[in-house]
Formats: sequence, C-alpha cells, structure tokens
Amino acid sequence: MLVIMKNDATESQVEAVVREIKRMGYRGIPIPGALRTAVCITGNEGPVDDSRLLSMSGVKETVRVTKPYKLVSKETRAQPTVIVVGQVAIGGGKPVVMAGPCAIENETQTLTIARIVKEHGAQVFRGGAFKPRTSPYSFQGLGEEGLRLLKKVREETGLLVITEAIDHTNLELVEEYADIIQIGARNMQNYSILRRAGRSTRPILLKRGFAATIEELLMSAEYVMAAGNTDVILCERGIRTFADVTRNTLDLSAIPSIKELSHLPVVVDPSHAAGRSEYVIPLSRGAIAVGADGLLVEVHHDPAHALSDGRQSLDAEQFASLMRQIT
Amino acid sequence: MLVIMKNDATESQVEAVVREIKRMGYRGIPIPGALRTAVCITGNEGPVDDSRLLSMSGVKETVRVTKPYKLVSKETRAQPTVIVVGQVAIGGGKPVVMAGPCAIENETQTLTIARIVKEHGAQVFRGGAFKPRTSPYSFQGLGEEGLRLLKKVREETGLLVITEAIDHTNLELVEEYADIIQIGARNMQNYSILRRAGRSTRPILLKRGFAATIEELLMSAEYVMAAGNTDVILCERGIRTFADVTRNTLDLSAIPSIKELSHLPVVVDPSHAAGRSEYVIPLSRGAIAVGADGLLVEVHHDPAHALSDGRQSLDAEQFASLMRQIT
Amino acid sequence: MLVIMKNDATESQVEAVVREIKRMGYRGIPIPGALRTAVCITGNEGPVDDSRLLSMSGVKETVRVTKPYKLVSKETRAQPTVIVVGQVAIGGGKPVVMAGPCAIENETQTLTIARIVKEHGAQVFRGGAFKPRTSPYSFQGLGEEGLRLLKKVREETGLLVITEAIDHTNLELVEEYADIIQIGARNMQNYSILRRAGRSTRPILLKRGFAATIEELLMSAEYVMAAGNTDVILCERGIRTFADVTRNTLDLSAIPSIKELSHLPVVVDPSHAAGRSEYVIPLSRGAIAVGADGLLVEVHHDPAHALSDGRQSLDAEQFASLMRQIT
Amino acid sequence: MLVIMKNDATESQVEAVVREIKRMGYRGIPIPGALRTAVCITGNEGPVDDSRLLSMSGVKETVRVTKPYKLVSKETRAQPTVIVVGQVAIGGGKPVVMAGPCAIENETQTLTIARIVKEHGAQVFRGGAFKPRTSPYSFQGLGEEGLRLLKKVREETGLLVITEAIDHTNLELVEEYADIIQIGARNMQNYSILRRAGRSTRPILLKRGFAATIEELLMSAEYVMAAGNTDVILCERGIRTFADVTRNTLDLSAIPSIKELSHLPVVVDPSHAAGRSEYVIPLSRGAIAVGADGLLVEVHHDPAHALSDGRQSLDAEQFASLMRQIT
Repeated sequence: MLVIMKNDATESQVEAVVREIKRMGYRGIPIPGALRTAVCITGNEGPVDDSRLLSMSGVKETVRVTKPYKLVSKETRAQPTVIVVGQVAIGGGKPVVMAGPCAIENETQTLTIARIVKEHGAQVFRGGAFKPRTSPYSFQGLGEEGLRLLKKVREETGLLVITEAIDHTNLELVEEYADIIQIGARNMQNYSILRRAGRSTRPILLKRGFAATIEELLMSAEYVMAAGNTDVILCERGIRTFADVTRNTLDLSAIPSIKELSHLPVVVDPSHAAGRSEYVIPLSRGAIAVGADGLLVEVHHDPAHALSDGRQSLDAEQFASLMRQIT
Repeated sequence: MLVIMKNDATESQVEAVVREIKRMGYRGIPIPGALRTAVCITGNEGPVDDSRLLSMSGVKETVRVTKPYKLVSKETRAQPTVIVVGQVAIGGGKPVVMAGPCAIENETQTLTIARIVKEHGAQVFRGGAFKPRTSPYSFQGLGEEGLRLLKKVREETGLLVITEAIDHTNLELVEEYADIIQIGARNMQNYSILRRAGRSTRPILLKRGFAATIEELLMSAEYVMAAGNTDVILCERGIRTFADVTRNTLDLSAIPSIKELSHLPVVVDPSHAAGRSEYVIPLSRGAIAVGADGLLVEVHHDPAHALSDGRQSLDAEQFASLMRQIT
Repeated sequence: MLVIMKNDATESQVEAVVREIKRMGYRGIPIPGALRTAVCITGNEGPVDDSRLLSMSGVKETVRVTKPYKLVSKETRAQPTVIVVGQVAIGGGKPVVMAGPCAIENETQTLTIARIVKEHGAQVFRGGAFKPRTSPYSFQGLGEEGLRLLKKVREETGLLVITEAIDHTNLELVEEYADIIQIGARNMQNYSILRRAGRSTRPILLKRGFAATIEELLMSAEYVMAAGNTDVILCERGIRTFADVTRNTLDLSAIPSIKELSHLPVVVDPSHAAGRSEYVIPLSRGAIAVGADGLLVEVHHDPAHALSDGRQSLDAEQFASLMRQIT
Repeated sequence: MLVIMKNDATESQVEAVVREIKRMGYRGIPIPGALRTAVCITGNEGPVDDSRLLSMSGVKETVRVTKPYKLVSKETRAQPTVIVVGQVAIGGGKPVVMAGPCAIENETQTLTIARIVKEHGAQVFRGGAFKPRTSPYSFQGLGEEGLRLLKKVREETGLLVITEAIDHTNLELVEEYADIIQIGARNMQNYSILRRAGRSTRPILLKRGFAATIEELLMSAEYVMAAGNTDVILCERGIRTFADVTRNTLDLSAIPSIKELSHLPVVVDPSHAAGRSEYVIPLSRGAIAVGADGLLVEVHHDPAHALSDGRQSLDAEQFASLMRQIT
C-alpha cells in the first residue's frame, strides 16, 4: 500500500506516518516525487487497515499496490527513474553504452581496449575482475589487481567503470573501485548479495537470470530497493530455450514488458546472449529499437587471443561500426 | 554437391549434366545465377563420386555442400533471393508490411480493415479464411466465402492478399484466390502440405513452428524448394519458452541467423508472439532493426469486437503510428 | 454442459434431448455409462439456457463442464476408458507394450523383429511405413509395401499392428491395414488429420507435440472424439527444453496430470524422448511406475544397421531385459 | 589426467607424484580406491606432458580425462560413491527418504512432523531454517532458532537432519547444526558457497538449478570436490519449461544420465517440481523406478495451515501411503 501525502505535507508529517506504520508492525519507506511524497508500506502479508493513516494530517489518500513488488513498480512511481553517475544519465532517453572485455587480463589489454571504446563513444568501461566460471579450473579473474586496473582506466580515460561482485562479502571490496556494481545472472536470486547491494551507495546493474521470469527479476530488484538502494539498472541478457543457433535466446520483448511494469531503466547485453560476435550488431540495433536504455557489449582489441569469450567480442572496427549504427 | 557450370556453358551442356546425375541415381536441379548456372545434386545419402561429372564439357568445378539443407543454403546461392509478386518485392531491401485481421469475419469488416491498412502504406492484406484452432468448438473461419472476400479486397484496393492453407488438399483451393500462401506454425512439419506447396506457382510464406530450430525451419523450406517452388518467405513468430509475460518469446536473433545461413527472405510476426497489442509496435521496430524483410501484423478496426485475437490486434490509429515509426 | 438422464430413461427420451439440443443450435452427443446416459452439449460459445431441457421427461439434471475440452474430460466420464482391440485391453490396468522398429525396412527385418517382440511378451507391433522426416532427402518409408508387411506380421504372429498415418488422405489407406493408427507429434495440431481420424473405426494413438501443453493435447483428442471416434490413446514422448543430454525431456508428470483431467488411457514412448537406448529401460520403468497404461518402444534386431534411429533402439537382449523388469 | 599408481605403490610414492605435479604448475589430488590410488591432475588448461610422471616409481599408467569435470567423473572413479552419515548410507542401493516441512515454523510443528516421518520410515528430517524467498517481504525462516529446533529433532528422534545454507558465511553456522547441508537450486552456481562447502566436513546435497544442464550440475559438484569435500549428493528437482500443469518439469532422465557420467549419488525432490501434492506420490515412484538413490519430500501434519508451500506438502496419511508404495 502507498500512503500519498498532500502536496504541501511537511517533513514531520511524513515522519509521523512512517512512525505510525512502524507501530502497526510494518515498514514505511518515503518515496519523494516531483510534486509530493508517497510512503510505501512493506512487510505486510495481507491487506492493511488504513483507517488510522487516512485520518493523519498531511495524508491525501492511500492506494493499494496490486503487484507482489512495490518499490520497483510503476504503481509506486509513474515517471521513469534516471540514474545519474558522474556525467552519465542512465534512463534519460539517450542510450548509454558500456563496453569492454569479458575479463581484465593485464594493464596493456585493459588500457588499449578502454581507449578504443572511449574513442568511439562509450560512456562506461566494463571488465571482469572476479569471474564466476562454470569450471573450477578456468581462469577466475585477476581479483583486486583487476579492480586496480579499472581504477586506472577511470583515471586515464575519464570513463566510468562497471564490474561484477560475486558475493556479499566481495561486494565490500568491489564498491571501493567501481562506479556501478554488476550482479551477474547466476546471482540474480542470491539474496545475500542483493541485500548487501541494497546497502551500497553505488548503482547496481542486475542481470536477469537465464531462467528468470520478468516478475522474478523485478522481485530481485525489490530486494535491493527494500534494503535502501534505489539506483537499480535491470539488464536483459538472454534466456535458456531449446533454440541452438545462439547461446541463449535474447528476449527483447522483456524491454517493453519491464517498461510497462517498472520505472527502472533497463539495458541489454547482446554479447552473452548471442555467444557470437556476428549477431551482436544486429541485436544491438534491435535492443535500441525496442526501447532499451543502453547496451553492455563485449569488446576486445584482439578477440582471437582473448582469455575468455573472444568468440563473442567485437573488435575495434566492429565496435566503431556498432556505434555508428546506433547513434 | 553443386556442379558449377562455366560462364559460357550451353543449355544442352547443363541438360547433359542433369541426365548424368539422374543416371547416377540422384536428382539434379539447375539453379541459374547472374553469371552462370549451378546444378544441385540431391537425393544422395553420402558423398558423391564426381569424377565423371568433372570430365563433362561445360563443367567448371564441383563444390561440396556442408549443410543438411542445400537449395535454401547460402552455399548454393550467395545473393539474397528477392521474391516479386505484382508490384511488391520481398527481400529487396525495403521492408514489406502485410497487415489485416486474424480472421475474415464479413464483407464490411474485411473491406474496412483493408482500406485502413492500404491508406497507411501496407502492401499486402492478410486475413484468415481457414483457421486452425486449438478447440474443435471455436470459429474455424468462413472458408471459401472468406477467400472470395479476399479476392474482393484485391479488386477494390489493389492490395496483394495472403491467407493460410491448412492442408495439402485445401491448398488447391487457396491458391486460386491468394497471391501468397501462408503455411502456419503448426503445419511447419506437415510434409504433405510442404510438398504440395512445392508444386504451387504462388510464393509460400512458411512460419516457424513454435518449437522448431532454425535448421528445422530451413529443412522445411527445403521440402518446398526441392519440390520445385523457389519462392519461399520464412517467418519468425515466437517460440515456446518458460517466459510468461508474452504469449511466446519472439526470437529476433533468428533473423541474423537465417540471413547467415540462407538466401531466402524472412519476415516477422510480432502479433502472435506478443499476444498483446501494447508490445507489437516496439517489437516491430526491433524486427526491422535486426534486418527483417517485412512484418506480418494483425490489425482490426474494432479490436474489442474482433471474432478472434482482438487482444493482440492494432487499431487504425496504432497501425498508423507503427507505419510512421518504421518508415 | 452435460445433460444427465435418469437411470431408467428410455432411448427415445435420449433422442428427444438430442433433437432439442439441435433445435437450440448446438450438438448433443450421447455418452452411455454403466448406470445411465449423459448427453454432452458441444458447439456453444457461452452458457446454455437449460430450462427447457430440465423440464423434459427422462432428464435428471444438468452439469456445467468447466474445462475447454468436454468429451475427453473426467467431468464427462469419471471411470477410465478401456480400449479393447482384439485380445488387448489398453487402459485396463495391465500395461500394454507396443514394440518394433522405427521404420519397416524389408520383410526379413520386419518378421525377425516381430518374432523377437512377440517372444518376449509385446502385444502390439509398431513400425513406420510412412515416415515424416525432417529432411526431404531422407528415407521416407516403404509406403504401402510397408503396410503389406505389417499385415504379414499380424498374420504370422498374431500381434496387433500400429503404424503412423501422415495426413488425412493417407489415413484412408493406413486404416485398411493397421489395428491402431498413430498420429505423430508433428501432426498433433494438424486438424485435418484429427477430423479424419475422428471418422475412423480404428483406435487412434495421438502423440503429444513436442511443444504442446497437456491442455492442447487434450483439445486435439477432443477433435477426434467430437468427430465421432471415442477410442483415443494419448502418448507422452518428450518435450523440447534446454536440457541436452537426452534428445527431448520425457515429461513423466504428464501421466498423473492426464489421469487427473481425462478418462483416456495414456502410454509413454521413451525411445524418441531419450534418443539413446541406454536410457530406454530406466525411463520405461519410470513410466510404468508413474502409472502409464503402456509403452511404445523401438526395438531392432541389429540396431547398428537400422535404416533409422538405431541409436535409440533396443536390441533383442535389451528388450528381453526390459520386459523382465516391467512385469 | 589421472595418474594411476600400481597396486603396491607406497604412500611416499604417491606423495612424490603429487609434488611433481605441483612442480609442473598444476595440482594433484590423490583419490584412494579399493585396490589402488589414482592422482587426479587439475588446473591444467591444455594437455599435460606425462613423460616425467610415467618414469616415476610406483606409477602404473596415465589416463586422459575426456570430460571438463574430473573428480566427479566416472572416468576417475568407476564404482558408485556411498556416503555414510551416522547409520544412513546414501548411494548404497537402498533409497533414502528425507522428509519434513518446507520451513521450520515452531517447536510443536517441527517435532510433530518429525515424529510422523520417523514413524513411517524416513531416515533424514528436512526443514528450512533459512529460506531463500522470491519476495523480500515473505517469511524468510526462523534462522538460528530453526537450527536449534533441528538439533532437538535429532536428539528426540534420532533422525539425521538436513537444512539449507544460503551463502558462504551462513554455511559456517549451518554446519554446526546440520548432518547434511543443502545448497539450493538458486545457489547452484554461487561459487562462493560451493567453495566454502568444499571445506566443510559435512556431506553436501546440491540441487540442480532450474535452468542447469547436467554438465553444469556436475561442474558445480566439481567445485565442491576440488575444494576437498568428496561427499556430494546431487538432487534433481525439476527444470523450467513451457509445460504448465506442474510448477517445473521433473527431468527423471537426469538420473540415468548422472549415473552414466558420475559416481556420485543422486536423489529426487518431487515436491518442488510438481508444486502439487497430488503428483508427489506417482513422481516418487517414478524416481525410485529410474534409479534414484533417495527422495527429498515435503511433509506437513497440517498442509492447509503450512507457512509455506502447503500446496505441495503430503499430510501424514499421504506420506504413509508413499512409504508403503516405494518400499
């Protein structure tokens, strides 16, 4: 349930409402809007008796939320959320491009690729320092050394950096270095990392699990928001189906679905879904066309010698071509 | 295997090659190209001994085909096939829009919708006269009466018409009326209708079955081509997955996949995949952006009263908006 | 809606009810039961006004059917249907085994395998004369010659024979030879063949399409029953999923689901689902354990040299072992 | 690669081989067998030069491992692993039944259910103290209080207890109380918890993720084994497909697949897959029939009032019936 405050409600009236909600055994989360504030009631299992709240000063009305998610819902906030990091606005109408290698390999590779993606117009540099890998025997990333290289990228190029945190204790370290923290598809329902992400001051990019419904993705975002972090970027990256030409099936209908249900921005990762660089450019055009707020794309200066996922990485020329085609 | 003829090979040399292939127990299908003719050998289970063929006059070389499909393969024909029907070229670079109601209901409905889609720039009118329906108790279409209304649409508006044939004997009747014959998703592996379609003089629009791989779709098109009809248009219309916001998951990566493997044109039906009109416009934009050669869209002048699938039909205003957005 | 007749209702009272239903614009199908007859009303889109029917003599009450399917529903007939063909009862408690090669290859192969499956206790011989094949260049079966060999199997061994009809005109020929007519997974929603099967006097074994829901399978069976043939055997044969160790994923939960919703018998084809003979025996045990009324199993005396699907065929020894394990 | 030691190789010869492998830059893990020891080489990306190893004393031969997983593979250990916990042997031929409520609710509920499952023959009590829940607003379990109740169950009934750990720091606490630690489907690719589980002295029950292939499941088990814990029990609990009668599709072909590829025991959880108690008994029979080493079943003395998942819980009478049917 949402408690809608009057346009001229005072801060102390809002606080009183939050206190009353707490007294009722729930939790009230104030959501400031352009004109007025709403207070979202969470923690109730069934319907809430709003008679006492409606009689409080400053309260205009109450609105039932019909979805299992609340804070992420368009019912709670009608206008799109724009997440501003440094000079970059995600969700603000202009698609944001986050590009870079699958894994941070070494300083030369990292800076070379960073300069390429910067030159062609990317705003955010992506690169994995901690890599969740199917096999325990595969390269698991450079770890903190990789994070230091990301910091160097920011210092040298001015690009923002995004990188993945792989569990709730690891997030502690990642947030020291990253401008945006990625939570990977395999961790979409790891509630410990979601709760910890909710206490971070960094924006969170949350990838859809490859067997997750849209509602489950939104519920996972709700974990982050309910813990206090309102800066959540959703990411469609392909789902598991019987189709076998691509690694996963990029579900571009997820974009209008999410836009209909939630105010949060949503970007698309065509690289992991396709699994092959040949399809990354057309799928990127498709993603922007259906209304995505940005792209997360793998780029490598020398894909044939990439430590991981070279098969799906664009080279410099292909990335330049992509940027021309989507802008 | 392909037998590549020399640029100056004569018709009788080609015929001699076809005869020799027949003598070997296979079938040779001449495929004329811009510069020279190739003869495709079909019917062989294993490798073909080409020594005799290579020694024949007019023969330049032989090329092994590595895919299970041959005639539909890019290996057999590198340049894209353009299918010309009346004034409309499908596959020629400019997307073709085929629009109209799910089912032909009556003369007024049909002509009203035909005028709407014509006015906003569609080139082909779609409408079902024979409807394959999950329930034996649902409206199964007007039958031949529906076909006569389609003929009237062509006469009154100049639009081409496309409609579905539901089995191999029914195709006989449908080809008297339709400019393009649709084979529906449920019939994609009904080989009797595919073989009969291969003997038709009309172009065939073949929809991907909702659990079909790209290879299976191409193999079904191969049935049509192997029986003699080279005018096949493929259609992506969504696949079955666990995802539940849309009726099916539109697999837009199918478009670059098909373009990579085959020379045939491919269009997208966003209406059946989405199951909801709200998503049809963004998915249509996405389809064109990934490189589709056209769209198959459901339009109804009064969706709320449509006899079938009103939920996913665009009304006149939405269709006008769609046409503005994709051209 | 069902019109339940009184226990002592006369035949002419039932006929009067059928006539009245016809007068109302619907169709009434009498369903005789052990104690009394019900008349199922089909063809109505919305609710039926039953006031006139309730006042007719011999009518006890009316019952609304809540499912989209009627004749196949347990609501219409509570006790399980037992289909008796010759000496074999399908659905009568004792699992029936239908076994034989994927394709009829020649007389020696056919009779050899028939003797093997007979010896070890199968009641029905399976073998394809008309083979729906993904590739137009693959062996498509011996055709009518194959049917004649099936007839010979029946004459020599006394086994019943089941074989596939591939379209509605082909079914005409198949029913001259087969004791049970199979409709394959790819034809599950080919409504022309379903309607024709509904006018056959042979029992129909209807395979679940590999992307069909249980409701869709039941609706397809409803097509057959609505056209007049009440002898329908359902068959689970695996669905398409992302899982890749087996060819398809055998959905054994389909068995209790179907048993809950319908009175029709249901058998399992583990061979096509598994795609590998190693898994056929455990999956067969599983099928019987969950309550299947029988098995459809591929057996070949020399799998390594089978013309098709040898990879998933049991040899004589494996089949003997299977029969020991399930009886 | 496996280094197979001679039957009479001494411990110091094995140690020398491990040292040599380390010197080569890899890691050697001794795997004692009934007759002789093998040393598994992990950490290599490509082929290993075994010339030096072959010349060492006590070494019989080397064997290449063809799968991406090694320690879990049947190539490494041909005979089935039997995991003994207290008096219970998992994988030893006799199916083990682990039964109890979805969530630990309070002492009365817990002990009541424990007595029921004990009475009817279960060997292990299951119950969630920490519950990963889709919604942040749902009941997340009693936490450590729930663990204490599990301890009480063991003390009062003598049943072993299994419960879920939800992240790598939480596992620390869970292993103090549980006899077997469960890692849930959503955490199957949470490598932090897998690595931590690999350092536990408790057996680990690892559930298959609902979009995981068999190979991915085995790779996740490999994480646990590579970190030192050889006691891993795999669990099939249903995969996500389009099928909609059950919550997930129980993939019983996973059992023979796993048995073919790995020596680890595998159990089945029919409750979560089915989502409805009606299907739990037939699916349990099916699981045992295909060869599962045990079951994980939800039981509640009062399903209608269960705090979570009552819909799929067996009541006392149903559980008694299940136990009669599978033993």
